[in-house]
Amino acid sequence: MDFGFDARTEELRQELLGFMDERIVPSLKVFDEQVAALDDRWAWSTVPVLQTLRAEARDLGLWNVFLPGDRGAGLTNLQYAPLAEITGRCIRLAPAVLNCAAPDTGNMEVLAQFGTEDQQAEWLDPLLRGEIRSAFAMTEPDVASSDATNVELSIRRDGDDYVINGRKWWITGAMNPECRILIVMGKTDPTADRHRQQSMILVPRDTPGLEVVRGMEVFGYDDHDHGGHAELRFTDVRVPASNLVGGEGDGFAIAQARLGPGRIHHCMRSIGLAEVAIEAMCRRASERVAFGRPIAEQGVVRDWIAESRVRVEQLRLLVLKTAWLMDTVGNKGAHTEIQAIKIATPRTVEWILDKAIQTHGAAGLSQDTDLAAAFAGIRTLRFADGPDEVHKNALAKAELRRHA
Amino acid sequence: MDFGFDARTEELRQELLGFMDERIVPSLKVFDEQVAALDDRWAWSTVPVLQTLRAEARDLGLWNVFLPGDRGAGLTNLQYAPLAEITGRCIRLAPAVLNCAAPDTGNMEVLAQFGTEDQQAEWLDPLLRGEIRSAFAMTEPDVASSDATNVELSIRRDGDDYVINGRKWWITGAMNPECRILIVMGKTDPTADRHRQQSMILVPRDTPGLEVVRGMEVFGYDDHDHGGHAELRFTDVRVPASNLVGGEGDGFAIAQARLGPGRIHHCMRSIGLAEVAIEAMCRRASERVAFGRPIAEQGVVRDWIAESRVRVEQLRLLVLKTAWLMDTVGNKGAHTEIQAIKIATPRTVEWILDKAIQTHGAAGLSQDTDLAAAFAGIRTLRFADGPDEVHKNALAKAELRRHA
Amino acid sequence: MDFGFDARTEELRQELLGFMDERIVPSLKVFDEQVAALDDRWAWSTVPVLQTLRAEARDLGLWNVFLPGDRGAGLTNLQYAPLAEITGRCIRLAPAVLNCAAPDTGNMEVLAQFGTEDQQAEWLDPLLRGEIRSAFAMTEPDVASSDATNVELSIRRDGDDYVINGRKWWITGAMNPECRILIVMGKTDPTADRHRQQSMILVPRDTPGLEVVRGMEVFGYDDHDHGGHAELRFTDVRVPASNLVGGEGDGFAIAQARLGPGRIHHCMRSIGLAEVAIEAMCRRASERVAFGRPIAEQGVVRDWIAESRVRVEQLRLLVLKTAWLMDTVGNKGAHTEIQAIKIATPRTVEWILDKAIQTHGAAGLSQDTDLAAAFAGIRTLRFADGPDEVHKNALAKAELRRHA
Amino acid sequence: MDFGFDARTEELRQELLGFMDERIVPSLKVFDEQVAALDDRWAWSTVPVLQTLRAEARDLGLWNVFLPGDRGAGLTNLQYAPLAEITGRCIRLAPAVLNCAAPDTGNMEVLAQFGTEDQQAEWLDPLLRGEIRSAFAMTEPDVASSDATNVELSIRRDGDDYVINGRKWWITGAMNPECRILIVMGKTDPTADRHRQQSMILVPRDTPGLEVVRGMEVFGYDDHDHGGHAELRFTDVRVPASNLVGGEGDGFAIAQARLGPGRIHHCMRSIGLAEVAIEAMCRRASERVAFGRPIAEQGVVRDWIAESRVRVEQLRLLVLKTAWLMDTVGNKGAHTEIQAIKIATPRTVEWILDKAIQTHGAAGLSQDTDLAAAFAGIRTLRFADGPDEVHKNALAKAELRRHA
Repeated sequence: MDFGFDARTEELRQELLGFMDERIVPSLKVFDEQVAALDDRWAWSTVPVLQTLRAEARDLGLWNVFLPGDRGAGLTNLQYAPLAEITGRCIRLAPAVLNCAAPDTGNMEVLAQFGTEDQQAEWLDPLLRGEIRSAFAMTEPDVASSDATNVELSIRRDGDDYVINGRKWWITGAMNPECRILIVMGKTDPTADRHRQQSMILVPRDTPGLEVVRGMEVFGYDDHDHGGHAELRFTDVRVPASNLVGGEGDGFAIAQARLGPGRIHHCMRSIGLAEVAIEAMCRRASERVAFGRPIAEQGVVRDWIAESRVRVEQLRLLVLKTAWLMDTVGNKGAHTEIQAIKIATPRTVEWILDKAIQTHGAAGLSQDTDLAAAFAGIRTLRFADGPDEVHKNALAKAELRRHA
Repeated sequence: MDFGFDARTEELRQELLGFMDERIVPSLKVFDEQVAALDDRWAWSTVPVLQTLRAEARDLGLWNVFLPGDRGAGLTNLQYAPLAEITGRCIRLAPAVLNCAAPDTGNMEVLAQFGTEDQQAEWLDPLLRGEIRSAFAMTEPDVASSDATNVELSIRRDGDDYVINGRKWWITGAMNPECRILIVMGKTDPTADRHRQQSMILVPRDTPGLEVVRGMEVFGYDDHDHGGHAELRFTDVRVPASNLVGGEGDGFAIAQARLGPGRIHHCMRSIGLAEVAIEAMCRRASERVAFGRPIAEQGVVRDWIAESRVRVEQLRLLVLKTAWLMDTVGNKGAHTEIQAIKIATPRTVEWILDKAIQTHGAAGLSQDTDLAAAFAGIRTLRFADGPDEVHKNALAKAELRRHA
Repeated sequence: MDFGFDARTEELRQELLGFMDERIVPSLKVFDEQVAALDDRWAWSTVPVLQTLRAEARDLGLWNVFLPGDRGAGLTNLQYAPLAEITGRCIRLAPAVLNCAAPDTGNMEVLAQFGTEDQQAEWLDPLLRGEIRSAFAMTEPDVASSDATNVELSIRRDGDDYVINGRKWWITGAMNPECRILIVMGKTDPTADRHRQQSMILVPRDTPGLEVVRGMEVFGYDDHDHGGHAELRFTDVRVPASNLVGGEGDGFAIAQARLGPGRIHHCMRSIGLAEVAIEAMCRRASERVAFGRPIAEQGVVRDWIAESRVRVEQLRLLVLKTAWLMDTVGNKGAHTEIQAIKIATPRTVEWILDKAIQTHGAAGLSQDTDLAAAFAGIRTLRFADGPDEVHKNALAKAELRRHA
Repeated sequence: MDFGFDARTEELRQELLGFMDERIVPSLKVFDEQVAALDDRWAWSTVPVLQTLRAEARDLGLWNVFLPGDRGAGLTNLQYAPLAEITGRCIRLAPAVLNCAAPDTGNMEVLAQFGTEDQQAEWLDPLLRGEIRSAFAMTEPDVASSDATNVELSIRRDGDDYVINGRKWWITGAMNPECRILIVMGKTDPTADRHRQQSMILVPRDTPGLEVVRGMEVFGYDDHDHGGHAELRFTDVRVPASNLVGGEGDGFAIAQARLGPGRIHHCMRSIGLAEVAIEAMCRRASERVAFGRPIAEQGVVRDWIAESRVRVEQLRLLVLKTAWLMDTVGNKGAHTEIQAIKIATPRTVEWILDKAIQTHGAAGLSQDTDLAAAFAGIRTLRFADGPDEVHKNALAKAELRRHA
């Protein structure tokens, strides 16, 4: 047992920390201004400052570090995790600069693992080069997305094509015109076994019959600076049969495979966010004077700070251990821990953000800090991939079985 | 001891409930459309449907029911409280329809109680008729508003005028061009006793030197459908000395007097909101199917529902008792309870909203329900009139004194 | 709506408060000494100081005040509730002094309401005079007592007798040799309707075949100063058929009727206990110095004190409203509220006791204060009459029905 | 970074797990019977079954495994920690069988690190052989023990002796007649620097003037099966100057050094306890039927189980990391983490125990399970070495400094 980073990880951490401090964080203001000046408010990924920073990241070897194997940096989950945490310290910009932003990361993993050579040439390569963006279309408005077998969108074979009909929503990134390709989950065979009815298929965003209905909002945010969350309607959308990812009926298994690493990334970035919130809370508490002394001297504020530290330390270790398990015994062996971090992360980080907000007073809820937007983002994680309650229920069942 | 409503209250409740069901709630959609179609996005109070509904409210005797005495409906706090709760069930529209919306209510109370005849003729009467709107400018960006003695805005006597310099923010309603008058709190004499340095003064919104800098956002909402929350800059703003409300040094006392009833109104409306959220949670839980059965059959969801009921019942009683105390022993005698409801209300209602949101899945955070916006609104109450922590500290000191 | 006590209640409150201060509280030490000196450690009710105080209570008209109607003081639930709270301030002694201690109170109510004249002459009258004590035998070791229909103890008719076989445990008071009579719940007809299988029967404690197996402990306490909690074994226990309370099959209904007032009493006494704990917390916080200042100046301690006040105020109002509902619309109409106070009371009071203990340091857990014993007692309430979770589930179902 | 146990640890774990299953756990009943049959109820360590098991532990190489260096098994903190967790699964017996029970462990560490050769020969060796037992006398009734500099007991030099006067309480183990030696913390020089006033001195329990006043109780437990918690009075207790541990003024530093490893042991044993509680909760939930199905199928019970797993996994990792830090950067470098585990452990384990109790119904609070006694023991940890609140305050101050 050893809680220290290995040499490669530590080296990358130092490099990334430097790049964050010197380049990414100071560019945030320019990024916001350039996004605000866009003609198409959703085309955030086109702004010049992003291109500049991406080129620099590439030069520094901080590009595609999320991706294991030859195509990426060849890091393990445990090695990438601390880097993901660092990007979470500037969550609106850093992941994109490193080409490590969801949902592209998961989509690239799917294409790298399950895509044909043609699919990889057409979609994975430009994604890896950061030339296009992608979306993952899973959630549907009319069914509980907590159960992946619920998807109702129909993918029907018709000659050499598949014809797609149905609705999706909360498709993150799909409002962005640079999002060129969607991986769409649907049903190819409603009569098959429960976990073999679903397939995944590649649908270019400009395919006729695919309508971007509207952007969904979270609290009052449309998240245009990340490509928003689209509601989509598929009406007789026709794509070649070769667009299928894997075989018919593989959809559920691919979705499961996609989950594990994505969960780690999400959780580590959220921890980075929590650390930034703790820092902001501490600084504000030291500076803000009420009733004649800094509020950092108030016992209740100190309690929040101590709690935040105690909670985030525990959480980080659990996420790192989960990454280690995924590396050593695989997603399946890490199943309980992958559920556990899904449960533990959003609520821990949400709690810390709430206290950071409270320490800032009304400014903490306003556009003058990033705290409220961060809260909104983290709040969505309590539903993402199904509500926490579903995961708790499953985790408890496994625990009960172990003692039966 | 008697927990039943008196006859007058019950009669008004029935009338208001009917008006809500038949007229106000069904008009919400039209209201939203008319607001969305405005040229000036802040001018919400000009939309036609509001005028129509206000006329009907006036005819039904549901106008200005918040105001005690001859000018209003002559209700006690305890009689008005259950009506305020009902308006909370449609918080975006009902209070405005009844001319019972903050901050106008508190401002009308101040003018009715402390205004001169001229001030009343010029500002109170049109407010009571619903012809104009108003704002209350207290909070400042650079000082902790938890301590009202902190205000730094300067009100300096200069001949027959006062000259005002300083900054305010979170001035609710002040983005609305129909907001014609501001009651501004500032310092007239920084050398006086700590609670005698402050005064309140009437400043028409179009006075030269008063600049509306921007609208503050709460989470991503600008609350334009309530007139927003303005940041204001006062640069040599000059108003006649006769605009002073009460005498020099009365500012703190007037602010205190304004607090009590406003707190009751806020809390009761929040309880109405909580009731609507519980209903929405129950309906959604009954309708939404996951894993083959309505989520209403899940133990954890039932726990949320039961908790919501148990908590809101206790909260309502405390608010009603506080209203009764204000009526019978006055604001001062009800001091502890007024603090207690300030502490208890936001967190209770926030908790219920969080569970209602969770029950709705991602829809609960989006523009498709009112839940996230309600959460945002309630969240601000944990700072409004000072953070809860300040009130808890004061309440504890009083408790400690009692057992010394 | 009126939150003030009526004249009769206020008069009795003042009398009881005086009696508490002057006589009961100062006698606690003597009571403990006399109990410690007993030959039979369970015979607490025989100690001389109790007899003296009871005589005084009788003279003051503070005797049997719990009992409505002619036999008692004729108070409503709403009138008795504030008195019960006061007795909770000295929960180890005051209820017994006033002959208002559980389980005798509930048993007297059952006998008064459902007993025959003979049963009343033999058992109710000496109970009302405080000459004997009683127990209520409902809970069984092998079945979930959350569901009263679960009882398995068999009551079988045999000629002019009933023959009883089975086990009970947690039968409070039954270790005390002065406990002369048990009301025993069992099944007379396992084939009847689910709520008509149960009957209640009177069993003198010295009936052959009734074995007192042992005293159950709660956190190390055997509660001998209240008669303990007995495990009982019934082996062919034979009593005359005339010992049945009500008719065969009435057991469930009688149990339900017994619940309502008992719940109010329990809850109000618990609130009295909470008030004493708050006082102790405040006094200790003011006296104890750490790091150079009284711990009452620490923000976290103040937070506990404020929270305690805010929570207990809400709780009391809910219990009082429930009493009022029982008086005005009956147990059935107050069903939701009776469940709500069962849920809200133990956790609220437990939380306050936990903080009072923490404020006292290790002394708070020891025999040097009453806090740990109080915690243990309150902790049991989270199971008593079924675990809170069962009540929450039922309350949620009712709420769901209301919005269906 | 590596989350797997090393080979030595894994080997010892397997050996200990086997010894627990085959010998220790099955002996618990006999142990209880033998303790119950003692003439001196405090002399628990004399019972025969303990001697037998200790001999077996010695043979298996599971003796003194807590102690680093030659005298013990030479394990690091990180290697011993998982063994300590396993002993926590049978906390009433296993630590004693392995000679790894507090407070002897900490005392042996002090003597090994700071004792003279003579002191080691006289006291450490018999302790290491398990022939005698010891106590650590730090806490005092009249001062807040959260601040070690507060101790008031006087240790005054008088010729070749020291003379000791003062009071101590909560001296764990000191009721046991086999406790032969106490390490007593007191003040040798009240005029020295704040952290140099204190010294530690060895006082044989039979020294004249040392009076064992009484055993303190925790809830209703006197913990006689662990030697209780004594209140002690020192009246002119005279010991040779050579009994001083370290030099005059070293007391505070020795106390600090003693804290770190003890904290790890405590926390890991508590985690073992939590694991046993989770198992008990799962088994009970699977077996207990209410309303026609095992309560394991109730969502709320599942929520408790899932929460327990999620919380304990995080906690364990934090404790293990702290052990690793102590091994790699020392107590000082691990300061924040040592505080963090002190804060996180008791509340986490207490929460789990509370739910395990609730799952068991009233049996969970009684002598029929170990749960309530475990709760009582864990509850004391929220004060031990100072209340959690003091540690949170200090931790927050360090965090604030880091961001200043």
